[in-house]
Formats: sequence, structure tokens, C-alpha cells
Amino acid sequence: MSRKIFNVALLGQGFMGRAHSNAYCQAPHFFALPFELRRKVICGRNQAALSEMARTWGWDETATDWRAVVERKDIDVVDIATPNALHAEMAIAAAAAGKIVLCEKPLAVSVEEGARMVSAIRGLPNMVWFNYRRTPGIALARRLVEEDRLGRVFHYRATYLQEWGNDPTRPPSWKTEKAAAGSGVLGDLLSHLIDAALYLNGPISEVSAMMQTFAAQRDVDDATLLLARFANRSVGTFEATRYAVGCRNQNRFEIHGSKGMLRFNLENLNHLEFFDATGARETEGPRLLLASNDYWKPGHAVGYEHTFVSALADFLRALDGGEPFHPDFEDAQRVQEVLDAVEQSAGKREWTVVR
Amino acid sequence: MSRKIFNVALLGQGFMGRAHSNAYCQAPHFFALPFELRRKVICGRNQAALSEMARTWGWDETATDWRAVVERKDIDVVDIATPNALHAEMAIAAAAAGKIVLCEKPLAVSVEEGARMVSAIRGLPNMVWFNYRRTPGIALARRLVEEDRLGRVFHYRATYLQEWGNDPTRPPSWKTEKAAAGSGVLGDLLSHLIDAALYLNGPISEVSAMMQTFAAQRDVDDATLLLARFANRSVGTFEATRYAVGCRNQNRFEIHGSKGMLRFNLENLNHLEFFDATGARETEGPRLLLASNDYWKPGHAVGYEHTFVSALADFLRALDGGEPFHPDFEDAQRVQEVLDAVEQSAGKREWTVVR
Amino acid sequence: MSRKIFNVALLGQGFMGRAHSNAYCQAPHFFALPFELRRKVICGRNQAALSEMARTWGWDETATDWRAVVERKDIDVVDIATPNALHAEMAIAAAAAGKIVLCEKPLAVSVEEGARMVSAIRGLPNMVWFNYRRTPGIALARRLVEEDRLGRVFHYRATYLQEWGNDPTRPPSWKTEKAAAGSGVLGDLLSHLIDAALYLNGPISEVSAMMQTFAAQRDVDDATLLLARFANRSVGTFEATRYAVGCRNQNRFEIHGSKGMLRFNLENLNHLEFFDATGARETEGPRLLLASNDYWKPGHAVGYEHTFVSALADFLRALDGGEPFHPDFEDAQRVQEVLDAVEQSAGKREWTVVR
Amino acid sequence: MSRKIFNVALLGQGFMGRAHSNAYCQAPHFFALPFELRRKVICGRNQAALSEMARTWGWDETATDWRAVVERKDIDVVDIATPNALHAEMAIAAAAAGKIVLCEKPLAVSVEEGARMVSAIRGLPNMVWFNYRRTPGIALARRLVEEDRLGRVFHYRATYLQEWGNDPTRPPSWKTEKAAAGSGVLGDLLSHLIDAALYLNGPISEVSAMMQTFAAQRDVDDATLLLARFANRSVGTFEATRYAVGCRNQNRFEIHGSKGMLRFNLENLNHLEFFDATGARETEGPRLLLASNDYWKPGHAVGYEHTFVSALADFLRALDGGEPFHPDFEDAQRVQEVLDAVEQSAGKREWTVVR
Repeated sequence: MSRKIFNVALLGQGFMGRAHSNAYCQAPHFFALPFELRRKVICGRNQAALSEMARTWGWDETATDWRAVVERKDIDVVDIATPNALHAEMAIAAAAAGKIVLCEKPLAVSVEEGARMVSAIRGLPNMVWFNYRRTPGIALARRLVEEDRLGRVFHYRATYLQEWGNDPTRPPSWKTEKAAAGSGVLGDLLSHLIDAALYLNGPISEVSAMMQTFAAQRDVDDATLLLARFANRSVGTFEATRYAVGCRNQNRFEIHGSKGMLRFNLENLNHLEFFDATGARETEGPRLLLASNDYWKPGHAVGYEHTFVSALADFLRALDGGEPFHPDFEDAQRVQEVLDAVEQSAGKREWTVVR
Repeated sequence: MSRKIFNVALLGQGFMGRAHSNAYCQAPHFFALPFELRRKVICGRNQAALSEMARTWGWDETATDWRAVVERKDIDVVDIATPNALHAEMAIAAAAAGKIVLCEKPLAVSVEEGARMVSAIRGLPNMVWFNYRRTPGIALARRLVEEDRLGRVFHYRATYLQEWGNDPTRPPSWKTEKAAAGSGVLGDLLSHLIDAALYLNGPISEVSAMMQTFAAQRDVDDATLLLARFANRSVGTFEATRYAVGCRNQNRFEIHGSKGMLRFNLENLNHLEFFDATGARETEGPRLLLASNDYWKPGHAVGYEHTFVSALADFLRALDGGEPFHPDFEDAQRVQEVLDAVEQSAGKREWTVVR
Repeated sequence: MSRKIFNVALLGQGFMGRAHSNAYCQAPHFFALPFELRRKVICGRNQAALSEMARTWGWDETATDWRAVVERKDIDVVDIATPNALHAEMAIAAAAAGKIVLCEKPLAVSVEEGARMVSAIRGLPNMVWFNYRRTPGIALARRLVEEDRLGRVFHYRATYLQEWGNDPTRPPSWKTEKAAAGSGVLGDLLSHLIDAALYLNGPISEVSAMMQTFAAQRDVDDATLLLARFANRSVGTFEATRYAVGCRNQNRFEIHGSKGMLRFNLENLNHLEFFDATGARETEGPRLLLASNDYWKPGHAVGYEHTFVSALADFLRALDGGEPFHPDFEDAQRVQEVLDAVEQSAGKREWTVVR
Repeated sequence: MSRKIFNVALLGQGFMGRAHSNAYCQAPHFFALPFELRRKVICGRNQAALSEMARTWGWDETATDWRAVVERKDIDVVDIATPNALHAEMAIAAAAAGKIVLCEKPLAVSVEEGARMVSAIRGLPNMVWFNYRRTPGIALARRLVEEDRLGRVFHYRATYLQEWGNDPTRPPSWKTEKAAAGSGVLGDLLSHLIDAALYLNGPISEVSAMMQTFAAQRDVDDATLLLARFANRSVGTFEATRYAVGCRNQNRFEIHGSKGMLRFNLENLNHLEFFDATGARETEGPRLLLASNDYWKPGHAVGYEHTFVSALADFLRALDGGEPFHPDFEDAQRVQEVLDAVEQSAGKREWTVVR
């Protein structure tokens, strides 16, 4: 088997840089991939840390000039794992250079940026790392939705609960600076909830939102809450916050339909609760499903990192098969459009249609 | 001990009539009450059922003319357990006759009605049966709030999830008719959530709400959702619905403060989850507390009906001690004002200040 | 309807006296009973407390001489709620007087005593208050077993976990004195587990047991553990203890059969977990069932006390219908035989056949 | 940094071969290891699968003659991931060749074999892959035990519940053949429970056990159950089974001590429940701790595979620091001694002292 080789350039050396590096290492261990990915160059600004990271994760080279990197002829794939405000420029440059582009979420810091990115990437393979779609629990949820186990959906309810905003000892992060992050929980956490909602319940038509900053002297939202109407006439609430004391990282949702219910919590990402309303009520209750995974036997849990590995493997297999991959830039732009409506709604204090 | 005797007239013979009757029977078994309550007369429109109910629960007499009953000299307490639309007229008449008045929730079908009731009752002992305040879990929650175990509150999140709206085999009920109920889940379920929120987190300043009717040909709300700002600057979401397939009767809330978190679910009404953020993070997690009760030993659960018994006992002891009892008509009118703002907000599709 | 009247004499004025008194008060409120029960006389040794209890619960008379009481011609039912060591003498005397006899569990403090009681009661209506059979969860478990939803049973696992043995501040109780209680957790807690096991999984053939006393200077078992073989070839473990720190009152069991699993915890007595192994494995998981009850609507929980009320009502209806009631003295003697084998096994340190 | 290089030979190409291969790949990504491990040769009997596995996981060579491999001068580490019955011969040969030996659990199929292995390995670095010690939950449990958060232990209760024994469609496995596995759940599952028990609660003194085979024509135990006394005077029950229908892979334990309780379930391996009995009882309940890990941020779960990675990294760091590593062959032989006592006890049907 002589597989096509893709040289990868990774832009970013932070937490996400590690998560992506791990995906490149691990994907070929668990999946028969149609392409070979070479960890060619990792690009960042902190040279010392960069060298250490290259050594640890097996990147052939390091670089500090991302523009030069994305234009290198020997690079096939550009993977963007930088703060949000850099995504657009990097993705557009990589697209201009004809690269395959993988971009961290959120796609952009504004819907306008997102639109330019979508436009630039047209015709090129691309994906956005909304990794949670690949948790065993959400993957199973999607399957059940596709099999119409929910029937007509009435309610969608999602919360993303973190607590670190309340921790004064925590070192500063680009995630709380508007210049780098574009927003607070809106892009960081709510984007995940919206992506899952669009994935599982279809388009959102309109929203009424509020954004809240609890910390003094912070220029981004610590919490964003909204009501939503979906195109399928179901209604929903969404809430993302960094002030949910008691919750480390709880991305939770519940969906109620005429035929069933689903309940998920990222803290138990191998599980999914499913209620089957088509059975006898007396012997039906929420079933705690232990979802299977592509890595180990049933009952042998996977973790956070596997969501990235699966996303990468799925992307490569779709690419090889000539099939569309999701979520791509267009999917992520759908999320962006909702986030934009949320921001507008919160600013104007009125119901806002998602365009 | 020669205790004062109160003759009680119960208006209503439905599910709530049973719950209240039970409270009259049981309160003296578990609490040393300062007054003796006599089940004097039960009043309703279905004479056959009324006689059966009187026999079962030990009401001395039955009656079908409530106006005559509330004016009887020998009646001390009028307890209103009729459909919502009748509360105001009955309560005002009872107040005019100088009675002690106990009224089911919601207080009224409009804020205007509520205002007239509050005005009428002034100077007379009164209570509203927001019984869930007396679940062991919520009672303990209140205690922890009073002890400042939550610190500055950031988030309040409450849902009341029932599923019977989706059941086409269910017989019709006055609860889905605007003429009798005034509203759907707004008065029936959301009122409970709002009462608990005001009790545990103080006044709500403004809301953005939506109301939804899923069933064809129904003139009340099957679901009501809202965003809220509290006077203490915390933010919240509320959702009440009869279309939460998979959930029998889940009145749930979560509160996140700078010092702790609380989580409650009526399905486990003896329990309360408490997270103490003042301890070492590594050994802190949500604690599943088994709240004590006034009936049996710790670990011996109480149920739905005990909430009514406790409310009644607390009311009588407050009355005897000359202390204010809560929730009273005024408290319930605070709820009514929020419900009114919710209804207005949903109608006008805009943020609405709670007056 | 002119129902036969039964005059009841209650022997015992402690915690169980209250639980039984409540059952007499409440049964007619929720069930159309074929007999009328009069709370005629309550008998105990503490006259002051006895008078207070009679007043609270509506017992017509008090008495301190139980022998005189059980021989009174006007007494139809003798209800024994005294410390274990008194059951046999009282029950035998009551039987000799031709009474209907209701006896608290455990039936006796020895299998020999139990045998005499069974012999004495022959031909007279009788019941033993193994109340937990009437929790909504266990009642539903029994129904599922009867419907063969478990198939061939492989495993039965039960624990009764209390913690108060570890609490040095707790006042002394007859429950830790051999003279009054006959045993420690053996009769107090393990008896409940064994009764449920026999009810749900049939006879136990042999056991290997150990008994442990953790507290200094205590002459009863603080913990009893055993392995068991059932007649149906399933195997089991049982553990009852007052040193399960962290657990108030957790009577838990799990049953695994070829077609399904059941899981119960008294701390959530309205619930039962059921796994249906006959469905597609991917969408099957333990289902959290909210069992219905005979008191209120689904989703409106009942508590500890309702188990007594239901037992009483079921007994009376069986009596009226001429049907056998369970658990009766014979059922309780089956439990006694297992407890005896357990005690022998622990003493001799060997597997012991249940006779 | 020029680290010493260790050439590794992996014996075994099954499920465990994959788990170990993954550990060699991943350990250097997350830990600053003092040694460099080279995946030199993988050894098995199925050449086709072996080549595929070598390619996937980056083993330089394949081999089918394990004796030749363990004697190769260029091999530093021999890792044994073969069926249980082969462990002794392989480990002794590897030890004879002076290798570092890592051996899958259980150490051996008999206590005599284990003794010879311990004797052979003396003086050589060695470990046994009781990987579950490295789940975040159990690692945290150990830390709490070491900090004396439990006080005097009263009860230890452990179950390992799998269900595949009941699945007739499952292909045959060496795990159900005595010749290859030595035993059924005894070595496969109970060994894990015993290792954790010795790790967390110290030596076991004596046991009373039973072993059960449910399947026709199977020569190993499908279920093994036992009572145990620990040296610290606590008492315990253990149960391992492949017939726990409804449970995929639930390795669970509960420990009750005078100062606290711990509860773990492998199905939620990032979590641990902790009850602190030293606080005010009213605000104490089991705390659901989300244990931190060495891989990602708190709240970002790890999975099954990380337990192997951590074990390997810990082993290497201990080796470098000249510190003892646990669990080693001696630790595993302690487990073997308990398993031996269990087997004897079940065979003779009597309490058996652990030698």
C-alpha cells in the first residue's frame, strides 16, 4: 500500500496544539487511513517551548513565521490552532496557497470574517475542529436522531458550564481578552452548544439573548444565555458560562421529542441517556447507554483526546471517498451566524432573526 | 391544653382537595399544633363524589354553594383548592367575611386579580400553597442560602418538566382550558419555579420570554421559557413545559454562587446537591445530601404529600407566634408580577421589567 | 355500606408504634377498605409518653398490661411493635386468644421461637411487617419478576448499609442489646434483605456467613456478611451493617438474569432500575423507572410511611377476599430459618444448609 | 539530553498487545521520560496479523520465536502480553536473560508459578500491568487513604461485573479455556479487585469463597464470590462475574471507614465518590469528585488506555530514581496468594487462610 503523503503544518503551540499533535500521532494507530500524515512543521512564537513541543510530538521542524509556512510548496495541510482572532487571516492565506485547511473552532470572531473564510476555502478540502461531535455519546445521539427515535422535537436545552471565571488565582489567558478571542464564552463554549444543536436539531431561526460580564475590567462575556426557536418549530434555551461554580467542564444537553428523549453530559462522554417513549410507560425510563467507540472494546472508555483523533480520521476518509465532511467551514459559518444573531440580540435587547 | 378550634371549609374536591384534606388529617400527628382544625365542610359541584370524599377524609358536611359556605359564622378558615380562575372571587369573598384564607397556587389568573386579593386579605392571616418550599431539599437549600453558603450568586437555572401534554390518550382537564386555568404551564408550573427563585435568590428585575403551544386547538401555553435578570445581578433561565417527554414531574434547579452550588430535583425531593467552593478543589465535588425531615428518622424518606402537611403546620405555628408566614398572598403576588411580565414579554417579544 | 369493625390493640409505643399508628390513620384515606379499624388501645410501659401518643394518634385507651389487653374480648386485632425478644410471647398469647395478629419483623429472635409462633397462629389471619415489599420500587420489581422479565437468574446482591453504629454520640438503644433485640443487624437489617430475596428470587439453600462486632463491649453483630446459593442455582452476596459510614439507610439490591437486571436503593424508594437484555444492546442500558403508587399521580413521590399503609390495606383486602396474604408468619419464618443458618454458619465457620 | 535507550520486545499481539503498544507510543508525549523506549520487536504466532500490527504501531521487527527474542542481546525490556498460562515460562526466561520484565496480570496461573517468577526476577526491574491502579479515580483514592481520610476501615466491598458470559453469539476466547487462562474470572477480573484491595486496604488474612460455572461445558469459573477478613480487621465481600447482565465492565468498590467513605466505578474512571465523615452531617454527603489527570486540564477526561501509559511512565521514573515501583512481581504474587486461597476455599468449602 503506497499511500499519498500529506505534510502538515500546525499553527499554534498551546493546549489545542497538543490536542491536534496527539491526533496526528494516534489516528494511524486506530484507523486504516487512506493518507499518510507527516508532522512537518509546527509554528509558533515561543521558540523554546516550540522546540520542546516539536521534540515531544515529533514535528520535523519549527517555525515562527506562519506566512512563510503556509506558502511552502511542501506543505499540504495547514492546521490552525491559534487564538480565534488569527483564524481568518491564516485560513485565508492557507486557502490562497491551495492548502487543505483544518481550523479550530470557533471559525472566526465575526460572521463577516467567517463569510470571507468560507468564500476563500471554496473548492478546497477543509474542516473545523468541533471535536465534541465525535464523543461516543454525541455520535450515538446523532445516530438515534437519524433513525427518527425522537420523532417531532419539542425542546432543546443546552448548557456549557465551567467555573474558572470565578477563580482569582488563575493566570490570565487570551481567552478573556477580546482582542485575541473576539468574545468570551460566546465563541469558546456557546459555539460548541450551537454546533451540536444544528447537528442534532437543525437550523435555528431566531434568538433572544443576553450576555453578562461578572468580572471587573474584563471586556468579554463571562456568560451568554439565550432563548431560541428552531426551524422545526421546537424551542430551546442555551447557556454558556465560566461562572458555574461546581462544574469543571459540563457540556450538557437534553432533547425532548414526541417519541423519545436524549440527555448528554461531557463529563460522562462515553454515556448517553435515551428515553424511548414508544414503549410501555411503566417499564420505560431514561436508559443510561454506554456508547461504543472505535478504539477499544465496549466498556473500555475513551476520553477527551479521542474526539480529535476521530475527527481527523473521519475527515481523511471522507476526503479519500470524495464525500462531504462535516463539520466544515460552511457548517462552522452556520454556527457563526447564530453567534452573530446572539450578539446582536444581546446588544439590542430584542429577538433577532438568524440570517 | 385547651387549644382554640378552627373550623375549616375546603373549596374544591379534586386532586388538590385530597392533598389538603390529607394535610388536615396528618398535621396534628406529627406536629404539636397550637390550634385544632376541624374538617367542617367540603364544598364542590359533584355531589356524589363530594359525599364520598367527605366520608373518606372525615369532613363533617358537604356543600355546593361556596358563597354560602364562606359566609358561615362557624367557619374560621377557608381553603381554596379550585381551578385558578375561581381563586380571586372566592378569596375576596372569604376575606370580606373575615376568614383566615389559604389559597392554592397560582394566586390568581392575572396580576390585577392578585392585587385585589392582596388588598382584600390585608390584616387577615393567609397563606398560599406553594408547597414545594417545604420539600426537605428546598427547605435545606433555603437554610444554606441564609447561612451564606453560596456567596454572590451568578446563575439561577430552573426547569419544570412534565410530559403529559404529549399524551393524546389523556382525558381533558381544566388545566388546558384558559377559561378555568388562566394559562397553561405559566400558572401551573412556572409559578412554582418563580416562587422558589424569589425564595432562594430574591427579586427578578426583568425577563425576556416566549410561550409556545404545541397542541392543536389548545388556548393555553404548553411551554414557557424565559431569560431573567435578578436584582442581585445574577442571571437565569426558566423553562416550564408539559412536552418534556421522558420526565414525569421534574422540578429542577441549579444555583451557582461564588462560594457554592445547589442542585435540586423534585423527583428526589429528600435530596439536595451542594458544592462547597470554599474547600480544597481536589476533594470537593457536588455532595448528595439526604436532607432530614420532621416526620421520621434521617434516611426515612418523606413524599409529595408531606409538603402540604409542613406548610399547614408552619402556618399555624406562625399564626400562634404572631410571626409572619411565608408564602402569603403578598409573596404569591410577587410571583404573579413576574408571571405577568413573562406573559407581556412573550406577547410583545421584548424584555419586560417586572413591576 | 356497613363494614365490619375491628378493634385494634397496638403493643409498642416507639418508632414502630408511630409508623403503625400512622398506617391505621391513613389506610382508609387512600383505600376502600372492607373493614373499619378502630384504634382502641395502645399498650406500653411509659405511661406519660403513652398518653401523649394516644392523644396524638387517636387511640381510645392506653394500657400497660399487655397480657390483659390481648385477652380483652373487644379486641380483634393485636399489633406487635415491641422489641424483638417480646414478639413470641405476645404473638402466642394473642393467638391463644384467637386474635388477628400483626407482628413487626423480625418474627422472632430464634428459629425455634418462630416455629412456635407459626404453630400458634395457624388458622388465624396474620401478617408480618416486612414493609419494604410495599415500596413502589420493590413492588414493581416483583411484578417484573412475575412477568419473567429477568429470565434465569444468575446473581443476587444485596446490602443494607447504615452508619449509626459508628456514632459515639448516639444514645443507647435496645437494638444493640442482645437481651432485647436477639441480634444486631441480623434481625434488624439482614432480615429485610432476606425477605426481599425470598420474595424476588425464591428459597436460599445454603450460606457461608460471618458476623462482626466493631464496637467494644457490644454483644450483638454490627455487621453480618454472607455468600448464598439459591434453590434456582443463582448465587448471591448479602451484607448488612451499621458501620457503612456515608450511608444513612441504604437497602440496595441488584439482580442479574439472562433476560434482564433490576437495581433498587431504598434511598430512592420510588425508583427502580431495569435493564432489558432482550433489546438491541446499543440502545439498551439501565432504565431509571419511576414506579407508580396507589396514593398520588405518577411523579408524585411517596415515602417511608406509605409502605406500612399499603401493607395494612393489602392485608385487609386479602382477608376480605379469602386470599392468602404475604408476608405472613410462615414467610417470616422462612426468613428466620435463613437467619438461623447464617448465625450457625458464622459460629461454626462453615457452609450451612438452610433447613 | 541524551537518554538511555531501551529496546523493547513485546510478546503478544492481541488486545493487550495493542494496549501496551499504545503505551509505548504515548508515554513520551505526555511525560518527560528518563529513558527512550524503542519498539524493537513484536512477537506472536499469527504472522500476517503481526506484520499489520508492527506497521500500525511502529514495531521495527516481528518474530514468532519468543525464546530467541528474549535472549537477544539487543533487547532490554521484555513485555509479556500473552495468555496467562504463558507468563511464567516467558518471564522466567526473560529474567534468566537479565531483562527488565513487564508482565500482564494475573502474574501466573498458580501461586507456585508466581513464586518461581518472583524468585527468578529478583534483582531485575519489573512490573505487572495492574493498570487500574492508574485510573484517576483509584489514584485519588490511594492518595486519600494515605492522607488518612478514611480512618479505621470497617468495610471493603468490591464487584467486577461483566456480562459477556451470557452472550451465546460471542466467539470463543482463550479466556474461557483453563489450559490457556488458568481460570475464568478468578485471574481475569478478581485479580484486579484484589490488587486494588491490597493497594487501598492492606493484606487479606482469610477468605471463604465460592466459584460458579453457569455455562455448560466450560472448565473455568464464570463467577467467583468471597467473604474476606483483612489484617486491619475490616471485613469485605468480593464478587467477579461474567454473568452480570446489564453491566459492560463495572469494576466497582466501596470502602467505609470511621472518617470517610470512598466509592469507585470503572465505568466512570475519572470520578471518585468521597464522603467526609469529619464534617457536619447535615451538609455532608457523598461528593462526586472529578479527579485530575496528568494528560489534559481538569474536566477533560482520560480513558481506559491512559492507565497503561501512566503505569509505564511511573515505572520508568521509579527505575531512574532508584525507587521501588508498584505493582511489581511481588505485589502481584500477593494477589496470587489470595487467589490461591480463594480457589482452595471454594474447593474445600471452608475458610482458608491466605499464606
